[in-house]
Amino acid sequence: MRQSQLFTKTRKEAPKDETSKNASLLIRGGFINKEMAGVYSYLPLGFRVLEKIENIIREEMNAIGGVEVLLTALQDPEPWKATGRWSDEVIDTWFKTKLANGTEIGLANTHEEPLANLMKHHIDSYKDLPVYAYQIQNKFRNELRAKSGLMRGREFLMKDLYSFTRDEKELEQFYEKCAEAYGKIFERTGIADKTYRTFADGGAFSKFSDEFQTLSEAGEDTIFIDEKKKLAINKEVYTDEVLDELNLKKEDLKEAKAIEVANIFKLGTKYSEPLGLIYKDESGNKIPVVMGSYGIGLGRLMGAIAEVHNDERGMIWPVSVAPFSVHILALPGGEEEAENIYKKMVAQNKEVLYDDRRDLSAGEKLAEADLIGIPQRAVVSEKSLKAGGVEVKMRNAEKEEIVPIEDLILKNV
Amino acid sequence: MRQSQLFTKTRKEAPKDETSKNASLLIRGGFINKEMAGVYSYLPLGFRVLEKIENIIREEMNAIGGVEVLLTALQDPEPWKATGRWSDEVIDTWFKTKLANGTEIGLANTHEEPLANLMKHHIDSYKDLPVYAYQIQNKFRNELRAKSGLMRGREFLMKDLYSFTRDEKELEQFYEKCAEAYGKIFERTGIADKTYRTFADGGAFSKFSDEFQTLSEAGEDTIFIDEKKKLAINKEVYTDEVLDELNLKKEDLKEAKAIEVANIFKLGTKYSEPLGLIYKDESGNKIPVVMGSYGIGLGRLMGAIAEVHNDERGMIWPVSVAPFSVHILALPGGEEEAENIYKKMVAQNKEVLYDDRRDLSAGEKLAEADLIGIPQRAVVSEKSLKAGGVEVKMRNAEKEEIVPIEDLILKNV
Repeated sequence: MRQSQLFTKTRKEAPKDETSKNASLLIRGGFINKEMAGVYSYLPLGFRVLEKIENIIREEMNAIGGVEVLLTALQDPEPWKATGRWSDEVIDTWFKTKLANGTEIGLANTHEEPLANLMKHHIDSYKDLPVYAYQIQNKFRNELRAKSGLMRGREFLMKDLYSFTRDEKELEQFYEKCAEAYGKIFERTGIADKTYRTFADGGAFSKFSDEFQTLSEAGEDTIFIDEKKKLAINKEVYTDEVLDELNLKKEDLKEAKAIEVANIFKLGTKYSEPLGLIYKDESGNKIPVVMGSYGIGLGRLMGAIAEVHNDERGMIWPVSVAPFSVHILALPGGEEEAENIYKKMVAQNKEVLYDDRRDLSAGEKLAEADLIGIPQRAVVSEKSLKAGGVEVKMRNAEKEEIVPIEDLILKNV
Repeated sequence: MRQSQLFTKTRKEAPKDETSKNASLLIRGGFINKEMAGVYSYLPLGFRVLEKIENIIREEMNAIGGVEVLLTALQDPEPWKATGRWSDEVIDTWFKTKLANGTEIGLANTHEEPLANLMKHHIDSYKDLPVYAYQIQNKFRNELRAKSGLMRGREFLMKDLYSFTRDEKELEQFYEKCAEAYGKIFERTGIADKTYRTFADGGAFSKFSDEFQTLSEAGEDTIFIDEKKKLAINKEVYTDEVLDELNLKKEDLKEAKAIEVANIFKLGTKYSEPLGLIYKDESGNKIPVVMGSYGIGLGRLMGAIAEVHNDERGMIWPVSVAPFSVHILALPGGEEEAENIYKKMVAQNKEVLYDDRRDLSAGEKLAEADLIGIPQRAVVSEKSLKAGGVEVKMRNAEKEEIVPIEDLILKNV
């Protein structure tokens, strides 16, 4: 993409009311726009990152048997009344609104109820199980405080998968499979090193749930990590009794701030029972379906990547989620050659951002490239051409090196 | 995909309260689920169709210079107050809700205001123009009556592009380019034959806007079509004076019901002026940006395809938007070979739905295949194998023919 066609401008300063580092960096780079607290639009560069994250998650969910659907934000109260979650006291982040005829409806903050309700049309017998359905869809949560940038959104994209299984054993098997898939997602998005599978409160059905917490000072959670075992425990369940049970030792644990990028829950029959989602087993017995839920916040994941991968000059995107893989900068004397290189790389389907703007100084272009943080920067100038090609610098490296033009085009070194 | 893993069940009857043919067919086939009037979830087959439509639209928007963004549903009232559209009397389909602190906010039914407002950060000079930004995003409209299935949604996916140009001439050029791109989209999605570019009311800035209307008894609009010129005029502007102006003759026109699948509008400075979206020209004069808007409803387009491509047995998807291109049915004596064929086709990245279910009769499988409407059906049975291969039938053809297995796998005949 030509930067002259990218409409976004970078900013030297973030808005004054933006206190979080992730949103501040991403707003300055022109990735996102703040509409109101906890509500962010994605601009072209940010949208590209979001798409990359989305595709990685989709691939890993499909690989474990997930089938994609798309549910709605608008919610009929009935199934929520059946499970007791329509009340604002039970779910304190409901956004509610009214149909033209006066009927009160809600905006979904999660989708256990509508999906379990829908499954009644499709699950009848043990032969129809298991089902693993997921979506990548907007959630709405009326957060009283939303000041952590992409970390705590009032409107945010979430991948939520729901498992429908015969029994706890089948649930348990999928639960571990999904935890593994989450590990792959964090590996692929570049936050695996800092992300801990974390024991957390399990709710009614199960003693523990699992959170995936990425170490960061920007996190809203406090966890205790065991670096050797690569496990952690959320402060909310941090008691001597629980430590014993989990075979974790106080002296091995370190307190840390962390961002909850994902969680997985065993739900049991908490929602299937009140909603009447039952199946017939081999003997014709009617048995409530056993459910699990598995969430990853896409914006939050992007925010976590931003918190982890940056320096004082801006973002340092991992290649896998970078909006482009190469950033070509045309500097004086290199304009014509830069144009050729850009065209050849695009013809090879390389993902290139090309700074073809004529009215910016070298310094401005270089500072902006650092702020945007594309993994590889390739400067084409009179100087680089004289030295034998293109001056290539990886965003996370100290030094640049001269690379022959053909090598850049063909190998994307 | 194995049909044993596709959780959806087809239904013999649509829900009683579903009066529209499109939703009735799509619900029976397991493509969508009705959550409430005008609010539909997409199930795996429907989601695949939606994705195909989305990709076609995305390709055509990118081809004319569109840059993709993703705006939010939640709306700060301020920019809407500035243009006078916050009032429920001006936009009578607002859904409004409240933040936890009591502030009233809205759910976007369109995005002129927030996008124009956002552009103030990015448009400064004539050098920053033109900008063509689009998104594929959920709209919310509090429709009093929502009884036409996917045709009139309270929550629905829309592709909305907004153009930001220097002047009317530049607007005009892009407007025609977008109209052409829309023609390609309707060509590619199989409704071009029945879709007419239609003169409609233009609002304040322009005498006419253009709608794209697909002929169908299910349509909510009445238009007058000129089949030779492949043009139409909406009843709302059908006067002798306008006919003269457009050089259309009453005797060449035929009244018809139609579905408005898309529209394009010249907005002029209607929104940029009150919002203060201005640019400086070469002489430093401050000039309001000239805008246009270009919408296509994805669900409505899917509904229009459903209305146009069906018979008494079910859907007949055009190949370009079909959830799968081939439907393999394993019938008695063909199970093993069907399994082999399926695996080989998947290995070649063919999009195959494979009916591997053991407990359904041949009649049930065939009827379901017709209802789902995948373009090519390939029956593998003892009989077909004896006859020399697979019994292939196109969904829109009368007869089946025996095709050697290798031909099906390699050529996807």
